[in-house]
Amino acid sequence: MTTLDDLLAPRSIAIVGASDDARRIGGRPLRHMIEQRFEGAVYPVNPNRDRVQGLQAYPALADIPGEVDFVLVAIPAAGVAEVVRQAAAKRARTVLIFSSGFAEMGGEGIAMQAEITRLARETGVRVIGPNCLGAFNSAIRFYPTFTSTIDRATPTPGGISIASQSGAYGSHIYMVSHLRGLGIRYWLTTGNEADLHIAECIRLLAEDDEVHTIMAYAESVKDGPMLSEALETARAARKPVIFMKVGRSAVGAAAASSHTASLAGEDAVYDAVLRQHGAWRARSTEEMLDIAYACRPRIYPAGRRLGLVTISGGAGVLMADAAEDAGLDVAPMPADAQAEIKAVVPFASALNPVDVTAQFFNDLSLVPRFTKAMLERGGYDGLIGFWTSVAGSPILAAPLLRSLTEAMAGRENQIFLQSVIAPDEIRRAYEDAGFPCFEDPTRAVNAMAALMAFGRAFAKGRAAVPHTPALPPLPAGPLGEREAKEILAAAGLPMVPDRLVTTAVEAEDAARAFGPSAFKIASPDILHKTEAGGVHLGVTAADAGPTFDAIMAAARHHAPAARLDGVLVSPMVSGGVEMILGARIDPVFGPVVMAGLGGVFTEVFRDVSFRRAPISPDTALEMLDELKGAALLRGARGQPPADARSLAEALSRLSIFAAAHATTLESVEMNPVRALPDGAVALDALILVRRDRAS
Amino acid sequence: MTTLDDLLAPRSIAIVGASDDARRIGGRPLRHMIEQRFEGAVYPVNPNRDRVQGLQAYPALADIPGEVDFVLVAIPAAGVAEVVRQAAAKRARTVLIFSSGFAEMGGEGIAMQAEITRLARETGVRVIGPNCLGAFNSAIRFYPTFTSTIDRATPTPGGISIASQSGAYGSHIYMVSHLRGLGIRYWLTTGNEADLHIAECIRLLAEDDEVHTIMAYAESVKDGPMLSEALETARAARKPVIFMKVGRSAVGAAAASSHTASLAGEDAVYDAVLRQHGAWRARSTEEMLDIAYACRPRIYPAGRRLGLVTISGGAGVLMADAAEDAGLDVAPMPADAQAEIKAVVPFASALNPVDVTAQFFNDLSLVPRFTKAMLERGGYDGLIGFWTSVAGSPILAAPLLRSLTEAMAGRENQIFLQSVIAPDEIRRAYEDAGFPCFEDPTRAVNAMAALMAFGRAFAKGRAAVPHTPALPPLPAGPLGEREAKEILAAAGLPMVPDRLVTTAVEAEDAARAFGPSAFKIASPDILHKTEAGGVHLGVTAADAGPTFDAIMAAARHHAPAARLDGVLVSPMVSGGVEMILGARIDPVFGPVVMAGLGGVFTEVFRDVSFRRAPISPDTALEMLDELKGAALLRGARGQPPADARSLAEALSRLSIFAAAHATTLESVEMNPVRALPDGAVALDALILVRRDRAS
Repeated sequence: MTTLDDLLAPRSIAIVGASDDARRIGGRPLRHMIEQRFEGAVYPVNPNRDRVQGLQAYPALADIPGEVDFVLVAIPAAGVAEVVRQAAAKRARTVLIFSSGFAEMGGEGIAMQAEITRLARETGVRVIGPNCLGAFNSAIRFYPTFTSTIDRATPTPGGISIASQSGAYGSHIYMVSHLRGLGIRYWLTTGNEADLHIAECIRLLAEDDEVHTIMAYAESVKDGPMLSEALETARAARKPVIFMKVGRSAVGAAAASSHTASLAGEDAVYDAVLRQHGAWRARSTEEMLDIAYACRPRIYPAGRRLGLVTISGGAGVLMADAAEDAGLDVAPMPADAQAEIKAVVPFASALNPVDVTAQFFNDLSLVPRFTKAMLERGGYDGLIGFWTSVAGSPILAAPLLRSLTEAMAGRENQIFLQSVIAPDEIRRAYEDAGFPCFEDPTRAVNAMAALMAFGRAFAKGRAAVPHTPALPPLPAGPLGEREAKEILAAAGLPMVPDRLVTTAVEAEDAARAFGPSAFKIASPDILHKTEAGGVHLGVTAADAGPTFDAIMAAARHHAPAARLDGVLVSPMVSGGVEMILGARIDPVFGPVVMAGLGGVFTEVFRDVSFRRAPISPDTALEMLDELKGAALLRGARGQPPADARSLAEALSRLSIFAAAHATTLESVEMNPVRALPDGAVALDALILVRRDRAS
Repeated sequence: MTTLDDLLAPRSIAIVGASDDARRIGGRPLRHMIEQRFEGAVYPVNPNRDRVQGLQAYPALADIPGEVDFVLVAIPAAGVAEVVRQAAAKRARTVLIFSSGFAEMGGEGIAMQAEITRLARETGVRVIGPNCLGAFNSAIRFYPTFTSTIDRATPTPGGISIASQSGAYGSHIYMVSHLRGLGIRYWLTTGNEADLHIAECIRLLAEDDEVHTIMAYAESVKDGPMLSEALETARAARKPVIFMKVGRSAVGAAAASSHTASLAGEDAVYDAVLRQHGAWRARSTEEMLDIAYACRPRIYPAGRRLGLVTISGGAGVLMADAAEDAGLDVAPMPADAQAEIKAVVPFASALNPVDVTAQFFNDLSLVPRFTKAMLERGGYDGLIGFWTSVAGSPILAAPLLRSLTEAMAGRENQIFLQSVIAPDEIRRAYEDAGFPCFEDPTRAVNAMAALMAFGRAFAKGRAAVPHTPALPPLPAGPLGEREAKEILAAAGLPMVPDRLVTTAVEAEDAARAFGPSAFKIASPDILHKTEAGGVHLGVTAADAGPTFDAIMAAARHHAPAARLDGVLVSPMVSGGVEMILGARIDPVFGPVVMAGLGGVFTEVFRDVSFRRAPISPDTALEMLDELKGAALLRGARGQPPADARSLAEALSRLSIFAAAHATTLESVEMNPVRALPDGAVALDALILVRRDRAS
């Protein structure tokens, strides 16, 4: 299997299309290699010149006398495939292609890119790009990139790495990291991803011992399952992945043929998958950088309890608000610890936030006393201290830093972020002592929320994934309601009982057996049953015969050509909470499962939750908990709580069903499902089979 | 009326409790006056010394030979009231009190503070504080404050001013402003607000010609109506108010006796009032500063159309996502303008975001050509350019700035923010040319959203406020359903018709007249009618007699002592959208009106919207539009649209009703209200009269 060393630690590089003009795309990487003193061999390839930027040049790859591990390509698209072939012949491990004019241009470009993909698969040479800005490995000063950012900011090696589909934006992320003082080890831009793609980059970074934090930027992901694997590899290695996924427009909503399909707008699925695997989805570059920066001490507390210590009551309230927004728990100090603080400073607020007050200026020893009490007695997973520009004053900075260091001595599982305004050198002193610093207290709170989310994800580890059984293939579609319900019932899903009746007498029998019943036309050709006059609810045995006749007549009138199988009778089920459970096969991630509250909650409020399928009942419970309307399941408005466990069992089974039928299923939806105080039951179901499998 | 000149532009200051030790609270402001060279007279008052920090000292205020405009007090609480008296006798205009030990300590401190409030009212002297950190007026170098921040950052005068309840946090805001290069004219901290409070500060700043942007921080507001007035004064003067209100815990929910009361958690009301008057509620200091900074060019476009121009496609997508989140419209370029751009750079994305691509580096003239096309043809209210560190390169910065300036020449109603990474001096060049710069593109988008929100609020101006009529006083409570409905019907609110029946025969007559009816026990002593067996729905004339008897019997059994007036019969109304309309008298803001979707939407999803009452029907329509579930009123899920205009009329009338009864009403709620395709009707109502007015 490929490693980052294979890709980005070559002993030699050939630059095909090397230019003597150091400002040109073919000239810049050569200049970087020379200026940054890459220690491996560098071979310019240029049929028109003997020397390029002072180095001996070669007419073609084949003419290079030594071995070539890495080939960089900066020539027009038409010639690129031939260079890949030559690189493979030369037994290069990696070809990095700057050239554009491939899939992004459409038409012939798509075919040219497919050829490169084919060559990579066939020869085993790994391809980065085409249409990419390059990469770097700062530890060996290897800069195969034409970004000019390197000129303005020479990388310092560190434990953070960046993978970006966008070259220009990847450069921006790098630049901002550099300005933040973050050492970047690897930087990769993947461009059109003919071979190496963003998910594999994350896996490679997760597997590399030198990397401890991963930042990624993507507009789309080619291989959803590999992204899952990559994120799990990172989680197992306790490496935070901070992922920025942009382009949130829902795809395919217009063409959607069921709620589940239209709701699985790709963005919500990305959101769910990233959360499912413990990655943090960043919404801005600043947020991404804040979190990467806060990861420097590599302390990820597996909790939510936040202690706040401040010299400004106002800042304390502000941070408490932000913490609540971020889902953190600003739990109060134990009463005895509060009393201790009050004994020292009677007018200090000791609850949490703990307000040191202006007494701070008179007695700096209050800081270690108060914060030790918080760390030891308050049991907080992390603290944030607000000291504003006071912490940057030349007189106070050193003793404050000593106090903080003293308070944290021997504490390896708690983290202490600081909100300070300080000149660079003072700020660096705090940082080097293990205290990340934020000018803005709200940003400190948000970074803390991310550190704790990582901590919880690392502690929890990979969710148990149920076994996907081999199931008999789905029949060719379209499937009627009755068939769908039978298939799902056979898969262990709780479907309301029903009976297909074909005469008024049978209808009466059924209504007598079930009590007040729902009558629905049974026809594979009538999808919109209500519009066809095909639905009557609360039908009693007395009304059953006439109702049967009325439904059949209405259906015949509405759709004279439809095949009518009869009327489906099932008992009325009322009460409980109305839910929708569904699953679909996502083009990127494969089977995904969805839960939502019924009706307008799903359609108007979009209160739904997703996971990659299959999932266990425990994971299904987490999905239900994520709903904004989860309070309804817990028994809001004087209602008894719903049987969430039964609902979760059903959701888990539905997810297994979808996974088992991933190749033939388009989507499945149980709607409505009534979550009752005891059990859950689906009243209707729809299975859409992939059209290429439909009869 | 007081002006800022009265408060903060004195010709002389006396410092009572002036200390020779420049580090002490009574010493610092004196040192500031000396070091910063305040040009007025400075009189230290200290009975124990002849000279303080080199200036002649006086034993008491009365001993000062000249006039004293401003008295600063830094002595223990017990002596403060006497100083206020002396200051008034000396005809000082302002007393600023550092001293703590007042209302914040409870007990006797509350009484001492009340005395100061009384003295201010009685003598006309204005009091700032007590328990405050002071204030400044940088234009005249007047620094009556003991913040040490002044030592680290001498203010530069400018058009931005700060009002903060919190002293320490106010200092932080000032410090961050200073670091951003923002000139601060006035800085006020109000502490315990015995007299001057935050709302009046905003009004004074809004009235001052030198101030163009106002930042405010508050934990609570004492005078809601004055805040409204202050914000309207600012809006009329086209001055942005950026308001940070912290402490978001809902008050009084436990004691709430109706939905409306419990939902009017003060935070949601603050939110609504700030929005209502065109202020921007900031959630973090960074956001507040970003917006104040973006206000520098004082251009507030009254729209939502945002054009994005970028050298990175990735950054374009990221900004478009952020714009959507912020409610801005990334509208496409007109087709002909797109074609023009494509003619220049065939592979450029010309839709919006417009991607200049790396062609930028070859031909900088693309920038004015593309951005002019966007400004002229795209009709955008504002543009954001993403140039990252490229814009900070010494070679490119000057020509880029020329290009931007050329594109914007003569455009006074459009604004162009930049996302750039640049050294300070280059960034300042952009700023001075009218282009605020943000390192992070998302922050640029959010600042743009605020500028446009100000622009729309300024253009819209003050909403028409309906006349509040004199209404007969409410009867003493508690009021039964029937009485509530009658009162509201008399106020012009659409109540379902009803009839009070006292016999089975009358019940039958009523049900015959109304059709299927709702029967409800009528008793001022039974509030929970359903639990008392007092509610039957869908009663037909045939069942009316027995139902009447059953309800009366159940009520007698349930509450033997209750007065039973009979049964209230009203027609069943179904269909439409279920809503709740309510109003309450907020302790801070007075009458506020509320609209929400019924049931769980209000209780679980908290989908409600507020305004200060009274409001016009147009404002009521805006409230309805703000609901997340507004789509239901517009006719989601195949339902006909509801008659929003009738609903808005009702909401407006309810708001007028609440305003007219502000002194006696506690809350009023119409729940449910059915918003039908034609009209709206309330099925039930509850009026709670203030307990001090109840019988």
